[in-house]
Amino acid sequence: MIKCALVTIGDELLYGNIDDTNATWLSQELIEIGVIVSARINVGDGLSDIQWALEVALDKAEVVILTGGLGPTKDDKTREAIAGFCKRPLVRDEGLANLLEKHFSPRGQQVVALNEKLSWVCEGSEILPNSKGTAVGTWVDHARGAIISLPGVPYEMKIIMEEEVLPRIRSRYDVEPLFVQWIMTAGQGESSLSVALESIEKSMPKGVDLAYLPSLQGVRLRLTSSNKLKQESKKIARSIEECLGHLVFAKENTTLSYVVHNILIEHRVKLALAESCTGGNILATLVKHPGSSQYLLGGHVVYSNEWKHKEIDVKKDLIDSFGAVSEEVARSMAEGSKANSGADMALAVTGIAGPDGGSPKKPVGTVHIALCHNEITYHKKFRLHTDRQVNIALTTTLALNMIRLALQGSLEA
Amino acid sequence: MIKCALVTIGDELLYGNIDDTNATWLSQELIEIGVIVSARINVGDGLSDIQWALEVALDKAEVVILTGGLGPTKDDKTREAIAGFCKRPLVRDEGLANLLEKHFSPRGQQVVALNEKLSWVCEGSEILPNSKGTAVGTWVDHARGAIISLPGVPYEMKIIMEEEVLPRIRSRYDVEPLFVQWIMTAGQGESSLSVALESIEKSMPKGVDLAYLPSLQGVRLRLTSSNKLKQESKKIARSIEECLGHLVFAKENTTLSYVVHNILIEHRVKLALAESCTGGNILATLVKHPGSSQYLLGGHVVYSNEWKHKEIDVKKDLIDSFGAVSEEVARSMAEGSKANSGADMALAVTGIAGPDGGSPKKPVGTVHIALCHNEITYHKKFRLHTDRQVNIALTTTLALNMIRLALQGSLEA
Repeated sequence: MIKCALVTIGDELLYGNIDDTNATWLSQELIEIGVIVSARINVGDGLSDIQWALEVALDKAEVVILTGGLGPTKDDKTREAIAGFCKRPLVRDEGLANLLEKHFSPRGQQVVALNEKLSWVCEGSEILPNSKGTAVGTWVDHARGAIISLPGVPYEMKIIMEEEVLPRIRSRYDVEPLFVQWIMTAGQGESSLSVALESIEKSMPKGVDLAYLPSLQGVRLRLTSSNKLKQESKKIARSIEECLGHLVFAKENTTLSYVVHNILIEHRVKLALAESCTGGNILATLVKHPGSSQYLLGGHVVYSNEWKHKEIDVKKDLIDSFGAVSEEVARSMAEGSKANSGADMALAVTGIAGPDGGSPKKPVGTVHIALCHNEITYHKKFRLHTDRQVNIALTTTLALNMIRLALQGSLEA
Repeated sequence: MIKCALVTIGDELLYGNIDDTNATWLSQELIEIGVIVSARINVGDGLSDIQWALEVALDKAEVVILTGGLGPTKDDKTREAIAGFCKRPLVRDEGLANLLEKHFSPRGQQVVALNEKLSWVCEGSEILPNSKGTAVGTWVDHARGAIISLPGVPYEMKIIMEEEVLPRIRSRYDVEPLFVQWIMTAGQGESSLSVALESIEKSMPKGVDLAYLPSLQGVRLRLTSSNKLKQESKKIARSIEECLGHLVFAKENTTLSYVVHNILIEHRVKLALAESCTGGNILATLVKHPGSSQYLLGGHVVYSNEWKHKEIDVKKDLIDSFGAVSEEVARSMAEGSKANSGADMALAVTGIAGPDGGSPKKPVGTVHIALCHNEITYHKKFRLHTDRQVNIALTTTLALNMIRLALQGSLEA
């Protein structure tokens, strides 16, 4: 497989003013056609920085794609850097000069003069036209590899990449797309999964790679191989899925909330929610998906004990006897929410998100989730984290996962 | 000024699965204490890739910060890479081992064994504790520079950076912080602000820089200069604040939701919310802050018309006559929410988040926000975006901003 390195140029990146979304997009496009991105390098606008980046990038790759530094101002030094690196002169491209003259002359001779710089390219450059603007890219073949330079403005970079660069890479190199399989899981952390998968991983042939991508929304597993190992890799994916069972919520790169959203639509279930410690986050996570009105009746954020009683009929003596964060109150919240709303399913959450409010018996991170469906109320208790935002995010994931398991018939009471 | 290079490790970056937001955040933090980020390098999980990145990063900087590759699985090779690069052995840190034993033993001996790897560090490492979790960082002094290694999980990386790394860099190097002033705004976009500030920007002396950092939570303005230009820069900040008036919600780098949270506590206001198109997102945004129970009674997510009627007394004929997305219904929602809950202030939102549900008269992005306080109901109508998630985020920002303006006495009825 051929390797590509990305060099994104701009002080605004090094200052942290913007995320480097160009690098993300380029990586996705390249991997899909079977090009491995072996390194990505951000440097500032300086000439020597860009030349340094070219130098090290060509250590790691036979194709280097640079973005940025192609504008008309004196800050823009990518042209000079490429010519200097290749030890070739900058030359005026007459075709480009005519194009720019045509474009800028209506704005006056001063503008034409300012943009004169845009007609100059490293000798031996192939021009990569831009069907949506005047900023073009260039392709220079150097003894150490191909040096491709693109504008930094995302929509200009993308159109040249799609129309000019990707077709050239496909035709000039022997590229073969990677075979990628996704296994999305929720309900266990990275280390538990890796214990469970230990023997499968040990028996994996060289060339098949399993990556764990953990987040507060679950752990995504990505299995990659060459196309030659496709059948082998498919078998491994099946073993992993079998081994992890109900922990697997999807076999494509998606999110738990989107999967739950679709299961709810598919099962024609009307849902109501009663949230305490998550404060509306479970509701908000579902509502992000278009079409959530098909199943979501609504929800109560019952932050105070008064509201728990008034809105969803939690008996005051239940709260007095067991505390607001208890199995009994969680069950009562779910049942009250279902009864009041006429929903088919109601889910309720109560817990101590932190950082305060914990006690030795009920430390921060104690969470009760109850789910009422088909006359059964399920309940689970969790001991999560000490961080408030982590607890809210994890509780949301666990709650959505309970909805999924209930509708797939694998939730135990 | 000292130079720092960032090395972010992870195949998921090179595959374009996620944006490298760690690098963005680290850049911002470092520049503020007066450290220049001279290069950022992403590489994959491989041992030789990480060592290569260390090698080239030390070309460009005297401090290298690595993130990622510190987990317990065999993908995680940062420890080995640092030890290999420094030509030192990995050694077991007993303090760390005890900490991990304590943390993982409730989950069984297999989990303890799996995480054994986490106790091993490059010989001569200084441990950088993690006050929010078990993943620690390390600081290794090498002849060519300092090598700092942090976990890749953002909240763990950030806490170690703030509590351990930044103080050490400040005390060990001769850094002179840039003079940074923040002006946080909400209610107008980047281009409107830049038109308003045009004449101030033109008269700014060389060496004072104004950056616009737009997001769905408002536009942050960052004014930077050397300490020599401090007085000059302060004057400019005052002119900007004066020019932008009520658009400015803070003069430090904070969030609108945190400012609103504090204003609500300060004013001892009891708040109730009624959300339709935002589906609980305004509630969830406030509840993320510890102490929200001091003012938040609770909220209704009234997604269906039935719930708008049943839960907060919106008259059915109002919905029939004006539609659920209307000024009349928004006002009724806010008034019903306040009356039912006994809150001092109630805010209600109804709108068409999209992508479907729009009409020529009420296109996608139409949003009504009503706020009821001191017997007055305020109302604002907005025409936002075509994207659902953008609309939910922008509506949340605008709603929080209305609460702020109401409590600061600058909201017009």
